[in-house]
Amino acid sequence: MITRMSSLFLRTLREDPADAEVPSHRLLVRAGYVRRAAPGGYSWLPLGLRVLRNIERVVREEMDAIGAQEIQFPALLPKEPYEVTGRWSEYGDTLFRIKDRKGADYLLGPTHEELFTLTVKGEYSSYKDYPVMLYQVQTKYRDEARPRAGVLRGREFVMKDSYSFDLDDEGLEASYQKHRAAYVKIFDRLGLDYVIVAATSGAMGGSASEEFLATAESGEDTYVRSTDSGYAANVEAVVTPAPPARSLEGLPEAQVHHTPDTPTIETLVDFLNGAGLGREFTAADTLKNVLVKTRMPGTKEWTLLGIGVPGDREVDMKRLEAALEPAEVALVEEADFTANPFLVKGYIGPGALQANGVRYLVDPRIVTGTAWVTGADKADHHVVDLVCGRDFTPDGTVEAAEVREGDASPDGNGTLVAARGIEIGHIFQLGRKYADAFELDALGPDSKPVRITMGSYGVGVSRLVAAIAEQHHDELGLVWPRAVSPADVHLVVAGKDDSVFEGGERIAAELSQRGVSVLFDDRTVSPGVKFADAELIGVPTIVVVGKGLAKGVVEVKDRATGERTEVDADAVVDHLTGLVHG
Amino acid sequence: MITRMSSLFLRTLREDPADAEVPSHRLLVRAGYVRRAAPGGYSWLPLGLRVLRNIERVVREEMDAIGAQEIQFPALLPKEPYEVTGRWSEYGDTLFRIKDRKGADYLLGPTHEELFTLTVKGEYSSYKDYPVMLYQVQTKYRDEARPRAGVLRGREFVMKDSYSFDLDDEGLEASYQKHRAAYVKIFDRLGLDYVIVAATSGAMGGSASEEFLATAESGEDTYVRSTDSGYAANVEAVVTPAPPARSLEGLPEAQVHHTPDTPTIETLVDFLNGAGLGREFTAADTLKNVLVKTRMPGTKEWTLLGIGVPGDREVDMKRLEAALEPAEVALVEEADFTANPFLVKGYIGPGALQANGVRYLVDPRIVTGTAWVTGADKADHHVVDLVCGRDFTPDGTVEAAEVREGDASPDGNGTLVAARGIEIGHIFQLGRKYADAFELDALGPDSKPVRITMGSYGVGVSRLVAAIAEQHHDELGLVWPRAVSPADVHLVVAGKDDSVFEGGERIAAELSQRGVSVLFDDRTVSPGVKFADAELIGVPTIVVVGKGLAKGVVEVKDRATGERTEVDADAVVDHLTGLVHG
Repeated sequence: MITRMSSLFLRTLREDPADAEVPSHRLLVRAGYVRRAAPGGYSWLPLGLRVLRNIERVVREEMDAIGAQEIQFPALLPKEPYEVTGRWSEYGDTLFRIKDRKGADYLLGPTHEELFTLTVKGEYSSYKDYPVMLYQVQTKYRDEARPRAGVLRGREFVMKDSYSFDLDDEGLEASYQKHRAAYVKIFDRLGLDYVIVAATSGAMGGSASEEFLATAESGEDTYVRSTDSGYAANVEAVVTPAPPARSLEGLPEAQVHHTPDTPTIETLVDFLNGAGLGREFTAADTLKNVLVKTRMPGTKEWTLLGIGVPGDREVDMKRLEAALEPAEVALVEEADFTANPFLVKGYIGPGALQANGVRYLVDPRIVTGTAWVTGADKADHHVVDLVCGRDFTPDGTVEAAEVREGDASPDGNGTLVAARGIEIGHIFQLGRKYADAFELDALGPDSKPVRITMGSYGVGVSRLVAAIAEQHHDELGLVWPRAVSPADVHLVVAGKDDSVFEGGERIAAELSQRGVSVLFDDRTVSPGVKFADAELIGVPTIVVVGKGLAKGVVEVKDRATGERTEVDADAVVDHLTGLVHG
Repeated sequence: MITRMSSLFLRTLREDPADAEVPSHRLLVRAGYVRRAAPGGYSWLPLGLRVLRNIERVVREEMDAIGAQEIQFPALLPKEPYEVTGRWSEYGDTLFRIKDRKGADYLLGPTHEELFTLTVKGEYSSYKDYPVMLYQVQTKYRDEARPRAGVLRGREFVMKDSYSFDLDDEGLEASYQKHRAAYVKIFDRLGLDYVIVAATSGAMGGSASEEFLATAESGEDTYVRSTDSGYAANVEAVVTPAPPARSLEGLPEAQVHHTPDTPTIETLVDFLNGAGLGREFTAADTLKNVLVKTRMPGTKEWTLLGIGVPGDREVDMKRLEAALEPAEVALVEEADFTANPFLVKGYIGPGALQANGVRYLVDPRIVTGTAWVTGADKADHHVVDLVCGRDFTPDGTVEAAEVREGDASPDGNGTLVAARGIEIGHIFQLGRKYADAFELDALGPDSKPVRITMGSYGVGVSRLVAAIAEQHHDELGLVWPRAVSPADVHLVVAGKDDSVFEGGERIAAELSQRGVSVLFDDRTVSPGVKFADAELIGVPTIVVVGKGLAKGVVEVKDRATGERTEVDADAVVDHLTGLVHG
């Protein structure tokens, strides 16, 4: 295929668009791949659409290879199934809601769990029908509060979403691993540098959820990774290594001290270190008790919950919320203190909480045999040497303390550092949530119903265009990996002689016959404009047919390395065919 | 590619769906191609999606072949461009409107004229940029009052819409003809029986608008065609042949008659024939004057308009509206008679209308020298022998009279008969409507702006699945043309012996290696079930590997003709490869 620049619907821009924050957005607009059509809505121009389609093809090939079957749902969906699962309301403002001419409620699908589940229920009934994996490549809609960075976070975007349906947990694990392997292949083929991060703390079992993040400064997702190992995880998913329990033997007794004017951990530590206790205290020796309240979805009553973390760390509400999911978490208010006079603000200790029936969960570092300075449940008083397992026994542990760079990696190798990435894939063992909601059962060999268990797997297809561009560009423009490039070769005719144009035409025609797609710059503009456009557009191989042709040579340039090679004009078609198909 | 029925996400149905009115809907559901997901919203199951994709591929190939370039717009669009053209309100209830979280107005694109125009304006500026043709294959949304017949008329559907942008009328005509030729190729390749009907009466010039209708009993669109020629047109587009004008010489004078109790044409004709006038009258001798009122879009004032048609024909409001477009047309009300006392209800003649400044348009049959019985503008009185061109002179002609079977074909060959079809394509010379709305100009060679002229061309891609099924089925099921079939060959293993299964596996593998896609029925169900499913699914070639294999033969059945051939098992792969690849 030959695409002629002289008639291609493409106008490159010299200036960066005013609203572009990140390189991919800037370059995809400047090089004429996309245009903004609405807030969070982009038009794909010819070159952009080709990149998008190339990515879709890779995704489909790898989905088909693991036996997933492609189907397609409408985007405009009735409310009812989303009411059954509660997502009609849970999605909040992010859901685009719409009424039809009869006043019936519809939504624009943000994801299609409900439809996949109902469709399998509609077709399948016997255990012999399972397992099955289905997918679609479809336009999705989310009314993002802050659409940003071009196609990186749009309100209308293309996503591949697939679902697995299995009879048991082993089947789900196998389907999950198939998807995981397929995603590795997809992102490898697309030339991406990415990490697979644990996305849940593992409360639901091993690898219940993992995210594929393309490493990028501009990424919205933060994660931590180990300095020394392949460990990587969402901050919410980091599991704090618990130290071994210690012996209670010979530990000093707990002592309550009058600690006036110590409203903060810092002032408390200073006070203690000036109190002549014969020891040096740090914030890490204190136990900070934070009070929150929780309630389960669908209930109205809030319940108090005490959270104990080492005093040198803050409570990370996102980690706490992830740990307590699906419960809602809220901070306590003044009224809660008034209603519960046993809570002495600023001096809360484990004692009053547990004596009054408040559940008390602690950071995993707070193990039996560790001694703490903490509130004495009495204004202006703290207790020193309160020993876990002797003076108080927590109701359990919780991942609530902030994760910090320098923390030990949970896998025991190295320490954690923070990094940023773009979420390009997510694989998730959904379990039976949707099967329960719609009573998706298979009739087992014993004629008893077996509740199906599901996995959910997503790839951000249109976002991948931006993610790849984030990783593959330089100061001159885009530098596409071959698998997604809008053409195999960018052929530039540099010169005004008819013989040069004719030479270009001949090479383009021969390449096309050999199955090499050519972006052919046959315009009558200056070579400088053509070269600048070639660098900006980013096809991996640039061929320049110029005055060298008279001597029988053309120039082949590698867009990524900048390396230029003079190639015999008679051999260049073979040379390029080898580069592309070889 | 081999698709195994044992794991394919497909369950055929023995019963017709309760809501299916037409064969395509019934069979596409029964054979597991589509499932209803919402009113007017369908899910594409694996086989259906393949047919849809095959059609899309043919459409893209022919669009690319005429130099049209593919782009893609969002479906969720801001209100503003549609306000500029007035379509935000003109579309009425058919437009899905939506508010985002900030309360801003959006719509789901029913067609994308506005976006195409704005996009070309955004990229192009010089006359050297033109002409250009752009297209997209995209999901469209229309809140149809009565979605029906499965994917034949949905509220969410796939459409190919393209637009041409030219500097002048000759350019537009050339772009139009390119699209017309491409559409002929597309529908021929898809194996469709179709007619190209004139869709406007030609007031805008020659072939300003044509529709491609797939002939089908179940079609929603009615049209007329000639018994003897290739002439076909929408009823709105039929141009009435005007008889030649006649001499006024020697025609009897007009005479007013007292005609009591003649409220209808029939009673009038009876009265005249009993009045001893020495002639026989028929309804065709009377001139019926119908009063309507019109106003131009954006104006408030209604203006009276008189329409004269032969008394044996009704006024066809659809034809009248098409003829008067873009004006609105309404019937007169009692208040209009009260406000205009010169109008004598039931006895309106041309005289009072024209004397009072009411424009008077007549059917083309009413030419100079024709004599009519018509109202005398006086209760209970009619005038006989009122001669056109002598006693009254119309302000022009209008296509308002009903078209009837048996009318002479406008091309002079044969007579008209009515027929029904499914609109599968529409090509239309839009002209400068949208270019005017958005001031789409090119800077000409003389540095003066040239207003661009546009063409609009649509193919109903998802509807084509149903249209093809309407034409290609029998009582047993679907009968796909090869170009769109979900597989090349349906291979049925009929037997329980391992050797038969192994033979089937071997043939399937060899076919797949030769680039023949195989739907392989490797299930352990009875041969009867497999045969019934094969007929229902409708792959054009069915191969049965059964007990004949022991004797070295397999059966090849042509789904369309039912013809069965015994083929040597060793030769069957060559035989089928020849059938498929030609």
